[in-house]
Amino acid sequence: MSLPALFDLAGWSAAHQIVVEQALARWVSVPGVATATAGPPAALIESMRYAVLDGGKRLRPLLVLAAAEAASAGYPAPTPSVADESALRAACAVELIHAYSLVHDDMPCMDNDVLRRGKPTVHVKFGEASALLAGDALQALAFELLTPDETRVPAFRQARLCRLLARAAGCAGMAGGQAIDLASVGLALNERQLREMHQLKTGALLQASVMMGAACGTLPAAAEQALARFGEALGLAFQVVDDILDVTADSATLGKTAGKDADQNKPTYVSVLGLAPAQAHAQALLAQALGALKDSGLPDTRALQGLAEMVLSRTH
Amino acid sequence: MSLPALFDLAGWSAAHQIVVEQALARWVSVPGVATATAGPPAALIESMRYAVLDGGKRLRPLLVLAAAEAASAGYPAPTPSVADESALRAACAVELIHAYSLVHDDMPCMDNDVLRRGKPTVHVKFGEASALLAGDALQALAFELLTPDETRVPAFRQARLCRLLARAAGCAGMAGGQAIDLASVGLALNERQLREMHQLKTGALLQASVMMGAACGTLPAAAEQALARFGEALGLAFQVVDDILDVTADSATLGKTAGKDADQNKPTYVSVLGLAPAQAHAQALLAQALGALKDSGLPDTRALQGLAEMVLSRTH
Repeated sequence: MSLPALFDLAGWSAAHQIVVEQALARWVSVPGVATATAGPPAALIESMRYAVLDGGKRLRPLLVLAAAEAASAGYPAPTPSVADESALRAACAVELIHAYSLVHDDMPCMDNDVLRRGKPTVHVKFGEASALLAGDALQALAFELLTPDETRVPAFRQARLCRLLARAAGCAGMAGGQAIDLASVGLALNERQLREMHQLKTGALLQASVMMGAACGTLPAAAEQALARFGEALGLAFQVVDDILDVTADSATLGKTAGKDADQNKPTYVSVLGLAPAQAHAQALLAQALGALKDSGLPDTRALQGLAEMVLSRTH
Repeated sequence: MSLPALFDLAGWSAAHQIVVEQALARWVSVPGVATATAGPPAALIESMRYAVLDGGKRLRPLLVLAAAEAASAGYPAPTPSVADESALRAACAVELIHAYSLVHDDMPCMDNDVLRRGKPTVHVKFGEASALLAGDALQALAFELLTPDETRVPAFRQARLCRLLARAAGCAGMAGGQAIDLASVGLALNERQLREMHQLKTGALLQASVMMGAACGTLPAAAEQALARFGEALGLAFQVVDDILDVTADSATLGKTAGKDADQNKPTYVSVLGLAPAQAHAQALLAQALGALKDSGLPDTRALQGLAEMVLSRTH
């Protein structure tokens, strides 16, 4: 098998982003089955759509879809074929968890952010109580998306996707990482503690994105484990780069307040390691991720590779 | 088959409550699988346990277990045999969703309650940010409980339980009902609108408790539908009684502030129907629930019947 030397990551991403946007717009509306007499309240749906649609790089959904394509037997079709409903549902479910975490993170009792992606945050726009409920409902909707009535997603895969997502979102994943983050302001963490925090806070969901994509195929255990290592290294690299950008980028490029971590006295990879060592660490993690991809033995991991390189080279 | 004329609901409930408490204490700790390097932060787990353990009537878990026993072929053993891991996991998962909703409901941006079951609420005890995260993590943990690695819960049942719970918790269920509740303060709802709000806010999760228990057996569709009608009537009856108690009981008996709905100008069954018609309505709903139980054709629904009668006769 010979693959074209050049992989058009920008084209691949743009095409898949469209599919994800359309699916999110379709699914964050009236849920699978409304109750017999009452539909979901329009105001709640509006705040959920506001939180989810038209925003973000959709890195997590793209990782799901790239992993699903890598895990499928053939190559992705030249035009994006996200025909596999499992993968599309998994991609959107992960994004809903990410979106809910941003809504809750932005609330006054957490980071108290008033702007997100250039728009007023959900609690500024809809009020705090509505933001709380919108986040709660988005988390539930993620699991609803993974468990459709139709048989297009086999039950064993529904169960596995729910398992991966619940673990990545919960106390041994994202929520746990945020709790550590909350408790670590002003503390002098060492590198191991910093890594553990980020593995939970950001890493778990990024890794789960890769694993959930992989779970939409039927891979041998060794290949799945290699993709898990890829996801783990990528998740950590993402956070190291985030910490670097907080120092090196300006707010306009970043789309959020630069220098905020330092202002808030939060430990970061830059504060713990220094800028140059942090940059070297990010490169080492990328190498580790790409090595794991190679170990997977999968014939075409170009989209995953491209996304990993993009995470490292991103400017915002 | 002849059944003993007397069913000891108090004994049945007490024995099953112990099993539920023990399971919650075991499962709200270190989750199924911690990440490779970092466990969940102790502070988060502590706030989650505070929110869940030693509190509440455990009505929803009891409904799950009663429905699961009714749906199983034989009779429940004389000593409670909650050997079926599916049912116990479902019982605890429903309670985690209920507990998270109380934590978030009590927060200052929602009901701003400082006491719950005689103890300081989670945000008073641990701070608002921790309460937000504890609630979020409890919701994720509910789905984690439903999707264990072990094969003791078959995958098709894991998927079905996640589906039922996600729908009942989300925007067409509990979260949606709370959003309507939020929007309806000071509004003059008619009875249909009030019913729709409560069917989502309280009814969906109570009905799901019954349905999830039923899903742990292998019932014909007609019996499942009858249990769904039972759960729907019971869920509504629960709320009507809640509204009645808010007017007729004192705070000490109620364990929460009596007269709060009226003070907050919230529409209730008593404010919409009047006290005596609300009481008659509750009785009619109980009759409807018991009729549905009979329609189910199941040989032993005594625990479900007892729980329904208890919901009507409760004083708090």
